[in-house]
Amino acid sequence: MVRLRCTIYYDGSQFSGFQIQPKKRTIQGELERALKKMHKGSDIRIQASGRTDTGVHAKGQKIHFDSPYTIPTGNWKLALNTLLPGDLYIKDVTEVSETFHARYDVVEKEYRYYVTNEKEPDVFKRHYSYHFPYVLNVSKIKEACTYLEGTHDFTTFSSAKATTKGSKERTLFQVSCEQQGTELEFIFRGSGFLYNMVRIIVGVLLDVGQGRRNPEDINDLLKQKDRQLVGETIPPQGLYLWNVVYEEEPS
Amino acid sequence: MVRLRCTIYYDGSQFSGFQIQPKKRTIQGELERALKKMHKGSDIRIQASGRTDTGVHAKGQKIHFDSPYTIPTGNWKLALNTLLPGDLYIKDVTEVSETFHARYDVVEKEYRYYVTNEKEPDVFKRHYSYHFPYVLNVSKIKEACTYLEGTHDFTTFSSAKATTKGSKERTLFQVSCEQQGTELEFIFRGSGFLYNMVRIIVGVLLDVGQGRRNPEDINDLLKQKDRQLVGETIPPQGLYLWNVVYEEEPS
Repeated sequence: MVRLRCTIYYDGSQFSGFQIQPKKRTIQGELERALKKMHKGSDIRIQASGRTDTGVHAKGQKIHFDSPYTIPTGNWKLALNTLLPGDLYIKDVTEVSETFHARYDVVEKEYRYYVTNEKEPDVFKRHYSYHFPYVLNVSKIKEACTYLEGTHDFTTFSSAKATTKGSKERTLFQVSCEQQGTELEFIFRGSGFLYNMVRIIVGVLLDVGQGRRNPEDINDLLKQKDRQLVGETIPPQGLYLWNVVYEEEPS
Repeated sequence: MVRLRCTIYYDGSQFSGFQIQPKKRTIQGELERALKKMHKGSDIRIQASGRTDTGVHAKGQKIHFDSPYTIPTGNWKLALNTLLPGDLYIKDVTEVSETFHARYDVVEKEYRYYVTNEKEPDVFKRHYSYHFPYVLNVSKIKEACTYLEGTHDFTTFSSAKATTKGSKERTLFQVSCEQQGTELEFIFRGSGFLYNMVRIIVGVLLDVGQGRRNPEDINDLLKQKDRQLVGETIPPQGLYLWNVVYEEEPS
């Protein structure tokens, strides 16, 4: 058996999320369907770095699977992409050690969230960015970002529906917001993320940008560990799983 | 009765083209459905500057319709956008004279065609640009563009299926190609366009870019008036109806 790791890109807009579900079009479902075809009907199970929700995109999701085939990695890429739909693309395939695990071995994940701060909606961005038509003070948002970096308990900023047991403590290496024209790019790099964490945080950062909260409120919110204190989870279409880093790689 | 002209934007990827068809989702169908709702069940017919095919987008399509209602144009815009789906947007509504006609009064149309010249496909652009993975000589393409400007019979560059009777002579005011990174932007401004004309022309310009034809061949192709001499109509997803100009407006 050979263990293979793939970097995958997907446009999440036409998928019911990552995880396989009966009668729904999912990323895992499409990948396993393609692998089954390549393996003459044998089921091949994939493992991902983590799931993504309906409408969430990926530019650097990682998965692994095991195969009895010994074929060059370039041919794996070609064969799988031929079998996959246009909104799901294998960027690279690497042979890894049989102890590698796409989820357990993650050392860093990067998410990005895009907000289009324009008065009118753009039909071409409706699946790819969150349209936010209100005036924003970006320097206040940048200030708030600094309070989020470091190691904190993120209970306040994670879904109450979360099934995760154990610690809600995570370390964020980078939290930033850059403005390019009417587009805001939020970058989050961290050791790990709780369910809905990026979407809840960006929602609060937009509150700060609107002057509905102060940047330094972030500290208190973190300390209070109460999901009820902050607003709704903002929509999925602005969110991209951008990169997943493992120890063995140089990047 | 009041005649109203609208500028409309649409992402054509989920529409079966502009023209209304039974059981298909079309731009005309969605617009007339919204207007019918606003007019308490009365049918309101729209007229467009012209149709667009399945998968073709618009950033400045124009339509007109007549209504017995006298409501401010800003309210028209708001009411219609509330009733329309997310991939179809009314950018503005203007009251025009009752002799105005969205098709017959056109003095200039602008189309743009986008080509992504990258080796690998991009899942996020699959509906919005034509992926062309081969090496291109852009200066040869630019040279070929100059032969297309002016007044010519464009029979060679129009669909053989075209039902248009009468002259195939059209005047192109601008034919240009600009490279921005791996993106090529083709701009066509003209008095009018034949069926599939832009998509056939860009196909030939890409042949020139690949060295499969010389820029000066365009002259001969125009003279020979034979659709069979040139390649296939390239895909719709790169094409945008960008603007429609009428005499009365300053542009």
